[in-house]
Amino acid sequence: MLKVPTIVLNVKTYAEATGIKAVEIAQLMERISKETGSSMAIAVQASDIYICSQKVDMPVFSEHIDPIKPGSHTGWTLPEAIKSAGAVGTLINHSEHRLQLADIDLCVARAKELNLDHIVCTNNVATSKAAAALCPNFIAVEPPELIGGDISVTTADPDVVSRSVKAVKSVESKVRVLCGAGVKNGKDVAKAIELGADGVLLASGVVKAKNKETVIRDLASGL
Amino acid sequence: MLKVPTIVLNVKTYAEATGIKAVEIAQLMERISKETGSSMAIAVQASDIYICSQKVDMPVFSEHIDPIKPGSHTGWTLPEAIKSAGAVGTLINHSEHRLQLADIDLCVARAKELNLDHIVCTNNVATSKAAAALCPNFIAVEPPELIGGDISVTTADPDVVSRSVKAVKSVESKVRVLCGAGVKNGKDVAKAIELGADGVLLASGVVKAKNKETVIRDLASGL
Amino acid sequence: MLKVPTIVLNVKTYAEATGIKAVEIAQLMERISKETGSSMAIAVQASDIYICSQKVDMPVFSEHIDPIKPGSHTGWTLPEAIKSAGAVGTLINHSEHRLQLADIDLCVARAKELNLDHIVCTNNVATSKAAAALCPNFIAVEPPELIGGDISVTTADPDVVSRSVKAVKSVESKVRVLCGAGVKNGKDVAKAIELGADGVLLASGVVKAKNKETVIRDLASGL
Amino acid sequence: MLKVPTIVLNVKTYAEATGIKAVEIAQLMERISKETGSSMAIAVQASDIYICSQKVDMPVFSEHIDPIKPGSHTGWTLPEAIKSAGAVGTLINHSEHRLQLADIDLCVARAKELNLDHIVCTNNVATSKAAAALCPNFIAVEPPELIGGDISVTTADPDVVSRSVKAVKSVESKVRVLCGAGVKNGKDVAKAIELGADGVLLASGVVKAKNKETVIRDLASGL
Repeated sequence: MLKVPTIVLNVKTYAEATGIKAVEIAQLMERISKETGSSMAIAVQASDIYICSQKVDMPVFSEHIDPIKPGSHTGWTLPEAIKSAGAVGTLINHSEHRLQLADIDLCVARAKELNLDHIVCTNNVATSKAAAALCPNFIAVEPPELIGGDISVTTADPDVVSRSVKAVKSVESKVRVLCGAGVKNGKDVAKAIELGADGVLLASGVVKAKNKETVIRDLASGL
Repeated sequence: MLKVPTIVLNVKTYAEATGIKAVEIAQLMERISKETGSSMAIAVQASDIYICSQKVDMPVFSEHIDPIKPGSHTGWTLPEAIKSAGAVGTLINHSEHRLQLADIDLCVARAKELNLDHIVCTNNVATSKAAAALCPNFIAVEPPELIGGDISVTTADPDVVSRSVKAVKSVESKVRVLCGAGVKNGKDVAKAIELGADGVLLASGVVKAKNKETVIRDLASGL
Repeated sequence: MLKVPTIVLNVKTYAEATGIKAVEIAQLMERISKETGSSMAIAVQASDIYICSQKVDMPVFSEHIDPIKPGSHTGWTLPEAIKSAGAVGTLINHSEHRLQLADIDLCVARAKELNLDHIVCTNNVATSKAAAALCPNFIAVEPPELIGGDISVTTADPDVVSRSVKAVKSVESKVRVLCGAGVKNGKDVAKAIELGADGVLLASGVVKAKNKETVIRDLASGL
Repeated sequence: MLKVPTIVLNVKTYAEATGIKAVEIAQLMERISKETGSSMAIAVQASDIYICSQKVDMPVFSEHIDPIKPGSHTGWTLPEAIKSAGAVGTLINHSEHRLQLADIDLCVARAKELNLDHIVCTNNVATSKAAAALCPNFIAVEPPELIGGDISVTTADPDVVSRSVKAVKSVESKVRVLCGAGVKNGKDVAKAIELGADGVLLASGVVKAKNKETVIRDLASGL
């Protein structure tokens, strides 16, 4: 399982992180992760999992899995397929790809069955607590109104982080909690950990940065 | 654009066609396609597009694209991403992955913009005619009740094929029509062409076959 | 079938048009429709169909139907149920409630089977032409970016109206075409008819108006 | 709030319970409920809420609400609208109408805001526990594979009932638990209560019964 505290980067479907550019970001993270001894993972588009996991020696995640088993499911994301392509983990229920409750439960079960790390994304304290009942490896709480914004959740709403950690632990003490939305620098990371989180999930803060290396090094400094 | 008449294989999310097994089927098709001069394409899971297009010199398709542009769309299938991974085309609106009408229109537009071949799947004469109004490269009509079954659409309901061809051509004469559902052998392929289709779209007939080589050779003989 | 030219009001889920307020708007339209001899219809929420059709003698529509038959479909909108409550027609595939292509086809079939008037909403020329292939009573083209706005589609993009009419008629000459988005007054209605439409579909222009009676009378003057 | 123990009937979109037939079933339940002093409620289609709540003096529920506020949501089920039509409660997330986790949370919040009783449906112990974190009035656990079947969940899988009750109470002790799927008679009801449930949610057992009165009386005898 992903060592904590950790920094997980979700590259979404940004042009700046598709194909060879996803590989370049992964290579940069791998280098900084090794130099600094920081735990990091990168979640990439399904079609980029294979090449990324070929080119880097760090945890590559899928951005999504569907609650399915092998069979007749044209165009959906089979957990076995992303694992076979090299993914060691996956996001589940990202705010841009919400799932039904029963399907989150199925996805968590499928991820466990295949030994895939998995991060269930939630939007507030109540849904974080709900997700905890499904016993995933990780929960990442991200208030949707702060995603992609300029102010980190740890500044804009520190309470949602500390209360989510408490709520999750009250249901299942071993579930780890990340936080995200607006995270941009080492201070945000340090604050997240101070609030009880085991790390951060972020996207545009790195992908849209002019100097990605500077940003990733700064993030690592907060661990 | 895919030469016609053609045979398009959709490997879905079958265990028998995930990861290295998708590559093996693609290599088999490539070999038979070259030997026989038959036009063939293979649609694979997004996570298998890169390795398949690295390993074979034949058209690799995606099984799906989402109606999106680069941006914040975690876990969805970006047309640019499947192209960058090596796909030269895509299925759209497969019966196992239906889209809203406005989104099929967007997907066709995105595929054209990126010069991706594209096959819009439909379920009957009326929806085939409707899809024709969106001017895609290809329409593949597949009555859902016959998909995965033992009797080819060309035997069970030849009328749906010939009437779909006629309806599509009445709206846009240059749109090509494939047919699918239950297609298993060269006779089915020959009958499809006789009914006015430009080829077939099939899945389990090959993927679930004990001897895939025999089946693919037989299919090719029907072109 | 709804007489044309016609004015169809969709009250959506506006607070100003829920429950007794939906009835009041329906009564106002009924009165003006009778006085002026104008053809009008009102589409209301499913839970308001019964009381509206009890209280007024004018066509009451549902805002939506689902592509289902009687059975195990908890919470979905059964065509038989809205008819039994008093609806004589329905919207299908509104831009706020998009359906899959195959399901629009099913909804049109179900509406015809039950003798319900039906208006398939579309967003541009291509999807209007596509919808025509399904042979509905009416198509209402509404560019989503203009819905709820201050400028009528007939002013902002008259071309989309005239080209949709032409495209629809090229596929099925008997399908009638309405237009909508930003429609607010009699001039917009008159222009719609001049562009070849058989009437308009509107919502906020009436529902959000301070003086609904004035607006409805003005709209009627454009027929 | 609904008195417990209670029997909640979901009439789905069955032909046998649409329009006037929904009213007849409601009247029958009202009579038996009053005679026997048993707590009962009936969930009907949105278009039948008004007439049912006009005709009977017992709790009428909606089968569904959408996670929306008044506004531009054509064809969706506004909580205010079903309340205005006479509903005093609603089902949320029925297995035939699953919602995303974040939307279940929103629906529960909207129901509380409007003082509507609400029953969140779940499919197993884990999702029941998850739903409990959202603090609804009621949770109804219904294993989907038993819904509509001949064997009651209380016989086929009594464990899922008792474990769900325990799991729910461990998260929020005041949340009440119903169970459903295959429930058909008074023995099933008595067993549900013995297993710790506060009542049952059922559908076909009543709606498809030849003699509905006999079945409802028998169910009431189990309370």
